[in-house]
Amino acid sequence: MNLIDHTHDPALNSWVTSAQAADTDFPIQNLPFGRFRCAGSSEPWRIGVAMGDQVLDLKLASERGRWTTEIGTLLSPLADGNLNALMAQGRAPRVALRHALSSALAIGGQQETLATCLVPQRAIEMTLPCTISNYTDFYVGIHHATAVGKLFRPDNPLLPNYKWVPIGYHGRASSIIVSGQSVRRPRGQLAGDPSPRLAASQRLDCELELGFLIGPGNALGEPIGIKDAEAHLFGVTLFDDWSARDIQAWEYQPLGPFLAKNFASTISPWVVTMEALAPFRSPLRRPEGDPSPLPYLDGAANRLSGAMDIQLELLLQTAAMRKADLPATTLSRSNAAEAAYWTAAQLVTHHTVGGCNLQCGDLLGSGTLSGPGAGQEGSLLELSAGGKTPIQLPNGEQRAFLEDGDTLTMLGHCERPGTRRIGFGVCSGTILPAFAVD
Amino acid sequence: MNLIDHTHDPALNSWVTSAQAADTDFPIQNLPFGRFRCAGSSEPWRIGVAMGDQVLDLKLASERGRWTTEIGTLLSPLADGNLNALMAQGRAPRVALRHALSSALAIGGQQETLATCLVPQRAIEMTLPCTISNYTDFYVGIHHATAVGKLFRPDNPLLPNYKWVPIGYHGRASSIIVSGQSVRRPRGQLAGDPSPRLAASQRLDCELELGFLIGPGNALGEPIGIKDAEAHLFGVTLFDDWSARDIQAWEYQPLGPFLAKNFASTISPWVVTMEALAPFRSPLRRPEGDPSPLPYLDGAANRLSGAMDIQLELLLQTAAMRKADLPATTLSRSNAAEAAYWTAAQLVTHHTVGGCNLQCGDLLGSGTLSGPGAGQEGSLLELSAGGKTPIQLPNGEQRAFLEDGDTLTMLGHCERPGTRRIGFGVCSGTILPAFAVD
Repeated sequence: MNLIDHTHDPALNSWVTSAQAADTDFPIQNLPFGRFRCAGSSEPWRIGVAMGDQVLDLKLASERGRWTTEIGTLLSPLADGNLNALMAQGRAPRVALRHALSSALAIGGQQETLATCLVPQRAIEMTLPCTISNYTDFYVGIHHATAVGKLFRPDNPLLPNYKWVPIGYHGRASSIIVSGQSVRRPRGQLAGDPSPRLAASQRLDCELELGFLIGPGNALGEPIGIKDAEAHLFGVTLFDDWSARDIQAWEYQPLGPFLAKNFASTISPWVVTMEALAPFRSPLRRPEGDPSPLPYLDGAANRLSGAMDIQLELLLQTAAMRKADLPATTLSRSNAAEAAYWTAAQLVTHHTVGGCNLQCGDLLGSGTLSGPGAGQEGSLLELSAGGKTPIQLPNGEQRAFLEDGDTLTMLGHCERPGTRRIGFGVCSGTILPAFAVD
Repeated sequence: MNLIDHTHDPALNSWVTSAQAADTDFPIQNLPFGRFRCAGSSEPWRIGVAMGDQVLDLKLASERGRWTTEIGTLLSPLADGNLNALMAQGRAPRVALRHALSSALAIGGQQETLATCLVPQRAIEMTLPCTISNYTDFYVGIHHATAVGKLFRPDNPLLPNYKWVPIGYHGRASSIIVSGQSVRRPRGQLAGDPSPRLAASQRLDCELELGFLIGPGNALGEPIGIKDAEAHLFGVTLFDDWSARDIQAWEYQPLGPFLAKNFASTISPWVVTMEALAPFRSPLRRPEGDPSPLPYLDGAANRLSGAMDIQLELLLQTAAMRKADLPATTLSRSNAAEAAYWTAAQLVTHHTVGGCNLQCGDLLGSGTLSGPGAGQEGSLLELSAGGKTPIQLPNGEQRAFLEDGDTLTMLGHCERPGTRRIGFGVCSGTILPAFAVD
């Protein structure tokens, strides 16, 4: 199946003029879904499609646009704010909707009927794009795993299972929040002598990740083979797996991270679909001499186009910078295809190989996507070498870990010759001080 | 507040004659909730209360019984199969409903109207008692943690954090199944030389646990103090955290168990409420010389009555035993109050201390509740000393780990002088062979 179709044509333009800008995250080639309402209102959430600096309100569009019966049926639950209904249906209906929206929003499309269905993004507030029932976080960033491993085992940073097992653990779905929501610095047990103490985390960190959202799920006991795995992926977001390194260090043996991670995780509000990402897929590259994946994790399509060529960027604006009207400063840049040792399809297949059931709307975090070099670190733990060498900020401040008032922002985009650039919008959170200990 | 009220009076008897039996799990003092329908039907699930060998159908009871407006309002969502609606409301309405049901089912109560609302338990099938949004598994069984630790570190079995941190990790909510559903032996990566292989687990195990179900949740960022923690508990079930020890050994570093646990976890269908357990609470006993919990985990009520005096039993019936009409054999017996180092209230408080939000219907697994002595082990890993000394079964068979066709059953009950014995029903699962590797 050739997924590169006219909806990706770089010459295609929309009558929504802000979507014509060369640097917009949301040209007509993107068409990401999100859940929004008018800022400050208590209206029901509804689904929209980002176009330039506007949102196409699918509730209004379903009422006012001219659609086939098939498309009308697909739009109906979206008008009610239910993205999961579309996600559960798999690729064919999603592609049909993408084509219909692309035609309607293209120059010569439905400008007359749909121009009144646009809402400026500055006038909206957004929530989680879908109901996320379960959340699993993986650890596919091999440079991150190596860098973190080196802090503990300088001579042998990667554990023996790393190149065989897509390492993952179950995260906490209830505390996933949307970009823009503040993050309260967690309290927790910190190691101490002679006894630990309850205190606010002093080593609060971010993790630069992608979030993969599951479309159709699988039944318990019915694994998803590697050939079918992509069909279970709906789309991709940015994802910040906030981490309290000091809480983690004391609690994580022997069963893994718990309170160090479950106080909050931030997802970007716009879901970029697998169809929009089709022109930006890459071969999965493994270093010479690395083992081939076990057969259940291997397949031609996965090898040839399993990776995602997504440029990522981590930015920080401190309270002092904000006060002085200084913009956020870039901490690092990396590329998901270069950072990830495992593909999203491999994560789906591995997750289900023992029979575990994925459900529509489940979120798979990639793990921290650091590149191999300096300036490509996806966490402060790496940027500051475990806190030992604080980052120098342009205004003279230093950071080993996040301080109260810091705003951490993640950006992502795809860009290749012969394609139109598409982006993921913003994944951002500001740190609030911890509550006083009672 | 004195929770020991007339609903616990051992002299109280029901007009449901099977609930009068001395050895029933479900006398009128218990009144556990479950979700059922007629076996083999496709009726909507509805909530019932177990009474002897019968179930009081709360849909019929809400229609035919004589209830106050308050009780009628509480029964209405239960009639629709929604236990979460009751769970979310907290203790006072739950107590009111318990008193109303107790009066109606007592001799002299509503026999005339409610006798037609009983369904024999042998004629029903059951499902999960409520919607379980999130599942966390703890590790409160100190004798289990010590025994498992000894397999790896004979001289230093307990890690330094164990007596300070209620160790826990996030589990997989989607694969929680109800007692009676079969469990497919999982495939997964097993360690090997020179490379791991995908194979069916050869070290499949059970874990004897209690499940604590959350009633009212808390908002993100708002921890639950130890004094308030019990008010967030709705009730208790038996829970089997099936574990594939060989998958676990290879995958679990550095982020904890994943596929070793997420193929299935079994919950017993009847939820015994905190009110029914009130006469069976115990002081939390810590060995001489052990540290006091940090203040946020400590409180008078927790010390005096935080533990639960629940007798537990693990039984096995192999396929050969079933064929020969031999009954299940007891593998071990333990007591939750003796096995658990942390109370359910401490788990609630610790889980939320960093701000994590618990949601109504969330499940907290206790971890394996092994006693200190021989014959009190809550897993085969302990019973067979890591697989080295298989258990001898009465019919001459041996077991190091579970084999296909084995039925593992957990039972639990509470019994004290001056009280009526109450029980938890059955938590059971039969092992199906793994699918062939493609």
